[in-house]
Amino acid sequence: MSQTFSYARRVEFAETDLAGFIHFSRYLTYMEETEYAFLRSIGLDVIMDDAKGQLGFPRLESHCEYLYPARYGDVIETRLRVAENDGKRLTYDFDMRVNEKPVARGRLVVACCRFLPNRDPYAIVLPDRVLDRLPLTC
Amino acid sequence: MSQTFSYARRVEFAETDLAGFIHFSRYLTYMEETEYAFLRSIGLDVIMDDAKGQLGFPRLESHCEYLYPARYGDVIETRLRVAENDGKRLTYDFDMRVNEKPVARGRLVVACCRFLPNRDPYAIVLPDRVLDRLPLTC
Amino acid sequence: MSQTFSYARRVEFAETDLAGFIHFSRYLTYMEETEYAFLRSIGLDVIMDDAKGQLGFPRLESHCEYLYPARYGDVIETRLRVAENDGKRLTYDFDMRVNEKPVARGRLVVACCRFLPNRDPYAIVLPDRVLDRLPLTC
Amino acid sequence: MSQTFSYARRVEFAETDLAGFIHFSRYLTYMEETEYAFLRSIGLDVIMDDAKGQLGFPRLESHCEYLYPARYGDVIETRLRVAENDGKRLTYDFDMRVNEKPVARGRLVVACCRFLPNRDPYAIVLPDRVLDRLPLTC
Repeated sequence: MSQTFSYARRVEFAETDLAGFIHFSRYLTYMEETEYAFLRSIGLDVIMDDAKGQLGFPRLESHCEYLYPARYGDVIETRLRVAENDGKRLTYDFDMRVNEKPVARGRLVVACCRFLPNRDPYAIVLPDRVLDRLPLTC
Repeated sequence: MSQTFSYARRVEFAETDLAGFIHFSRYLTYMEETEYAFLRSIGLDVIMDDAKGQLGFPRLESHCEYLYPARYGDVIETRLRVAENDGKRLTYDFDMRVNEKPVARGRLVVACCRFLPNRDPYAIVLPDRVLDRLPLTC
Repeated sequence: MSQTFSYARRVEFAETDLAGFIHFSRYLTYMEETEYAFLRSIGLDVIMDDAKGQLGFPRLESHCEYLYPARYGDVIETRLRVAENDGKRLTYDFDMRVNEKPVARGRLVVACCRFLPNRDPYAIVLPDRVLDRLPLTC
Repeated sequence: MSQTFSYARRVEFAETDLAGFIHFSRYLTYMEETEYAFLRSIGLDVIMDDAKGQLGFPRLESHCEYLYPARYGDVIETRLRVAENDGKRLTYDFDMRVNEKPVARGRLVVACCRFLPNRDPYAIVLPDRVLDRLPLTC
């Protein structure tokens, strides 16, 4: 069974542009804020320490469809679903609405990576502490 | 024949995050800056006035693949290609490199829309002043 | 009697920089978010319509002292006080804390301006609808 | 003799807000970009390594006066002057113009701090490698 996590936030003034709506790049930060709130909700964090150093979730891919322009003051509710988990990468789907009206749909693909000093981050298999807490996907 | 437009910019400090690299949402603003520099290069602008009011190019879709993490001080060269033009929508492909090393690949789909006061923007066919200046796609 | 308005928000990942803390320019957006939440709380808005057009509050001056570096995940509580009201300009003082520890102190001076098409915004005296709702200063 | 360093940059679309002008917090990033371009110009960097670890310049204070609203596409020329150097802190003054018209005036006060793992940054006296390269103030 797939589960949905929901996160709501008001569009702030600094997130708009001169066209009068939220800037299109900001939907990605809404997706990210929802992802990190989801991780916190299952006892994980965006940067985690373990015996070997630090773990995190760099992005491999982002996608967003813009359906309706959200405005300053709108409260965007973002629903996250873990769409795929292949043991190394997680795919999150996002559904963004204002008063139930769809405003955007998005996707993030992230890898679990190890961060060590003086070395580029590199992908590892999802550790048990992450796998154990993730909801099942379907 | 397809043509490529190129735009280079240094990664600024405020564009990084605590992981030490450029924040993933910023690649979308690099794509946008390149798109608008391209429009300026062919005598167009991001907001244009005509007899009926204002025209612009709201985004319908964005996509980005993150290939290698760019850092503060890196100079990102973004190459834009008009990949598709169906008379109403333009698809731009972006290739982003640091010293020729690919760091990201992206895509933006935009519509030509009319902006009128007290009305949501609505799509129109690409006007001649735009079509005449666009390079051919292939 | 002076009154304090309080607004709390979590520091988001995209607001940090490679030094590992919140970027210093973001404190200004926290101040602004608090100011606009305050305006909403007294029945005003950041852009208001009246018979003559639109009114808003452009900034004349900002000031911020950085006392302690806030981090991703910290919840910043910002307290706003209307420090001065000379009938044309409002001065807001801000006190920002994480778990009661002061992290920054700020000030914004704003003017009430009229926005008309094809003209630069210009300052006007604070209209009654604003004055009537503002708390007294001391 | 005091010297001036100058840095020019175009206002980007994503830096504007729904009022149609550059967002007031962005002037601080212009000041910072100018400061870091200045450091690069004298052979320094925003984060520097030495035998004991890392050095950087956290902000103690920012101030900005907004004189005229800059717009998308404007090229802002920012002139930096080292206004004060007391051996521990540097005060930079900034003068921002569009086609010679003043749009903002700002100030940043920064400290030279050491960054060590698992410890808050702490201020140190300006090391010789910094002092030797700074222009004299007057």
